[in-house]
Amino acid sequence: MAKGFSTREENYSKWYNDIVQKAGLAENSAVRGCMVIKPYGYAIWEKMQAGLDKMFKDTGHSNAYFPIFIPKSFFSREAAHVEGFAKECAVVTHYRLKNDPDGSGIIVDPDAKLEEELIIRPTSETIIWDTYRNWIQSYRDLPILVNQWANVVRWEMRTRMFLRTAEFLWQEGHTAHATREEAMEETYRMLDVYADFAENHMAIPVLKGVKSENERFAGAEETFCIEALMQDGKALQAGTSHFLGQNFARAFDVKFTSREGRLEYVWATSWGVSTRLVGALIMAHSDDRGLVLPPRLAPIQVVIVPIYKNGEEYQKVCAKAREIRDALQRMGVLVKLDDRDTYKPGWKFNEYEFKGVPIRVAIGPRDVDNDTLELARRDTLAKEVIPAGQLGQVVEAWLASIQETLYKRALSFRENNTREVDNWEEFKQILDAGGGFIMAHWDGTAETEQKIKEETRATIRLIPFRRKEEPGRCVYSGKPSAGRVVFARAY
Amino acid sequence: MAKGFSTREENYSKWYNDIVQKAGLAENSAVRGCMVIKPYGYAIWEKMQAGLDKMFKDTGHSNAYFPIFIPKSFFSREAAHVEGFAKECAVVTHYRLKNDPDGSGIIVDPDAKLEEELIIRPTSETIIWDTYRNWIQSYRDLPILVNQWANVVRWEMRTRMFLRTAEFLWQEGHTAHATREEAMEETYRMLDVYADFAENHMAIPVLKGVKSENERFAGAEETFCIEALMQDGKALQAGTSHFLGQNFARAFDVKFTSREGRLEYVWATSWGVSTRLVGALIMAHSDDRGLVLPPRLAPIQVVIVPIYKNGEEYQKVCAKAREIRDALQRMGVLVKLDDRDTYKPGWKFNEYEFKGVPIRVAIGPRDVDNDTLELARRDTLAKEVIPAGQLGQVVEAWLASIQETLYKRALSFRENNTREVDNWEEFKQILDAGGGFIMAHWDGTAETEQKIKEETRATIRLIPFRRKEEPGRCVYSGKPSAGRVVFARAY
Repeated sequence: MAKGFSTREENYSKWYNDIVQKAGLAENSAVRGCMVIKPYGYAIWEKMQAGLDKMFKDTGHSNAYFPIFIPKSFFSREAAHVEGFAKECAVVTHYRLKNDPDGSGIIVDPDAKLEEELIIRPTSETIIWDTYRNWIQSYRDLPILVNQWANVVRWEMRTRMFLRTAEFLWQEGHTAHATREEAMEETYRMLDVYADFAENHMAIPVLKGVKSENERFAGAEETFCIEALMQDGKALQAGTSHFLGQNFARAFDVKFTSREGRLEYVWATSWGVSTRLVGALIMAHSDDRGLVLPPRLAPIQVVIVPIYKNGEEYQKVCAKAREIRDALQRMGVLVKLDDRDTYKPGWKFNEYEFKGVPIRVAIGPRDVDNDTLELARRDTLAKEVIPAGQLGQVVEAWLASIQETLYKRALSFRENNTREVDNWEEFKQILDAGGGFIMAHWDGTAETEQKIKEETRATIRLIPFRRKEEPGRCVYSGKPSAGRVVFARAY
Repeated sequence: MAKGFSTREENYSKWYNDIVQKAGLAENSAVRGCMVIKPYGYAIWEKMQAGLDKMFKDTGHSNAYFPIFIPKSFFSREAAHVEGFAKECAVVTHYRLKNDPDGSGIIVDPDAKLEEELIIRPTSETIIWDTYRNWIQSYRDLPILVNQWANVVRWEMRTRMFLRTAEFLWQEGHTAHATREEAMEETYRMLDVYADFAENHMAIPVLKGVKSENERFAGAEETFCIEALMQDGKALQAGTSHFLGQNFARAFDVKFTSREGRLEYVWATSWGVSTRLVGALIMAHSDDRGLVLPPRLAPIQVVIVPIYKNGEEYQKVCAKAREIRDALQRMGVLVKLDDRDTYKPGWKFNEYEFKGVPIRVAIGPRDVDNDTLELARRDTLAKEVIPAGQLGQVVEAWLASIQETLYKRALSFRENNTREVDNWEEFKQILDAGGGFIMAHWDGTAETEQKIKEETRATIRLIPFRRKEEPGRCVYSGKPSAGRVVFARAY
């Protein structure tokens, strides 16, 4: 275990930060609220990008790129959007620096003031719909199925690496459709893509549903989301898909001639996930020995550590280790042989355990003589000595098994921490004693939602898509309710 | 040919802009100097990224991500860097907007002024070396071989899509080394990677060499570059690799303990290419019928166009077309079947010709009966009717042949437009009569370089790495010179 590393029990928040920093995932930068994503952390994000990008393309989407700057006036166009987004933003006011006349450095040139300030995109609906106006004339130009991988900036006051940073990386899909039905279908489709990715790549079970009006994206008619449960009992929104209706088409005057020759406003969706998924991945699976990664997103799936006492043994062991590495590589396994002689095997064991590498292969002189290998898996910490000839099939089986074990473990954690609650005192007690998802009746009013939030910091995470018909009474107000919604404290 | 489309002869600059816009590559945005990269243009950039990223990883590099914001004071740290970069920059001064008290929209909140202004990165040496200080203690932490894919902003006064835009996309490699030799080796290695990419992926021959002091990157000890020749006789710098010496290590106090126990400054390189490569690709190969793409970077390598007169023929032809598409897909060919019945075959022929798709396959009812296909290649416009069973092998052969033809054509253009010139009048005449690369003697002084630039707008593109020993007299000043350098007007 890394020195000075906290356990979840001791200090969950410090445990998380320790993993982020000591596993080499990210660190705070010299710029307030912005992080540096280090190579190991970025490699996880790259694997997420590759997985998602393929899913986007398989569902017919193409990538494009729109400017990082948005003219200030664009934000005022859509009434709800301005309230939600035009606040905590980075504002560019000048375009030149010059030497300070007093010789002490450089200053902003007061003569280089922009006529209209530019906002660094917190999300791109406005600039994109301003562009779509010229792309769309007829139904033949629809649908437009575009995605953008980009950085965005929201000037958050309290930041945490990956979970909430001033600048973050994300993808934002922006689609345009001829009908409400088609746009709604797209909104559901992309939520399904996110849920599929969360469950099958990240090994994190998610709930799917719709946001209450309070929690809706500014400018959307409906916001769908996936919600995951972290090990401290807090929820994390892992992806959103918005049905924007004709709001942005009206705001930016985007009309098309339908097949029947009528001039109509275009229907829109937008959907996104961000580097916050890396935070979710860390918190969902890691343990008190450090990071735990599901094989499908691990930058290194198998690490090989040679064990030796002297130069002769080193040569002998490394020759065999290279053979093994090459064989695994040919199978498409992401394998690393750490044959550095500047670090000891024990140090390497700790290092790769802390970095969450799914499988470790140790090989010493005795193993070479006996044609064996010692394997250890990160999820259960189980070790096994196997005949070297079986390595390929064992690695394949273990990678699949680790992926499954992590998912099942997370699912069972969620099941054990999802409770139907009908009593307000119990509601508060549960939140203070470990949290989790609380399925409770709600009277459907924003007032009650707000009061619950003020008293407990819990919010409605979602209203499940297909909830059972179950009339009841609001856990807070006692007023009638048509079914349960999901409450939790959240990241 | 697209309506209103210019030829190179008529107006080269309009020809370029027409291709960019009418082939759906990019367009100007609502923000001055920033472009929207449209799906087809972005798909080319994605293929460039994929090719380069693999080459970077094969040479041991990892990706990471650093903040887009750089504190203003960082620019003053490296003396040469501040002169070169801290000028035409986008400056963030505020972090909040608010509703205008007069109710007319939103305004910048004067209370939300940053203590220190933030500059949007024009390049990331400063923020990265500020970060490396904490990553490097000992020789065991070296080398650091990191690359970043990112957007950067340089507030250019005159912009042209892809070639020079205020915001652009690029990659910037930033490496740290224990010795001068190792850093210099890396600088050469990455220039070779760029040259390899330009020649073998982009089908563009390039010259390799070193920049004169005037043209050197601000903060570098040496700048190496690759230079390509465009069809209007102007040069385009297609990639640079900088040996930074210990300049940034000194500026940001980055030292390491060497194997011998001495505390030393770290050696650095940086290297980059940008979306300007898309501009180079367009200008190098395209003709008066539109875009021409080398197969290795074409988002669509083969397009299939069904020919039919009625619904019955449409069914028959499309069934066969789908078979062909699936077969090509299985071979790994990027193929598109355009079976839309909202556009006529003739329109589609023009469309894909204009978009530079390397091979077009046309299939009509007679072809289905005779088991034939009509193929056309974009580079030579040659057509051929082939037995359907040979499609796979013909496509494979043509893709290779088109890639080669484009390279050879560009190489022969460059050879025909590279001239040794020893006379100042001839130097000026050639520049005005078509340009090209001029190999001329230069006395080695910045003054002469500057005067030549003022009189002709030609600059020294590079000093070739291994130029022949050939004493001569400077084409401008008549003073002694040790060898020829390459002059051209440039983008």
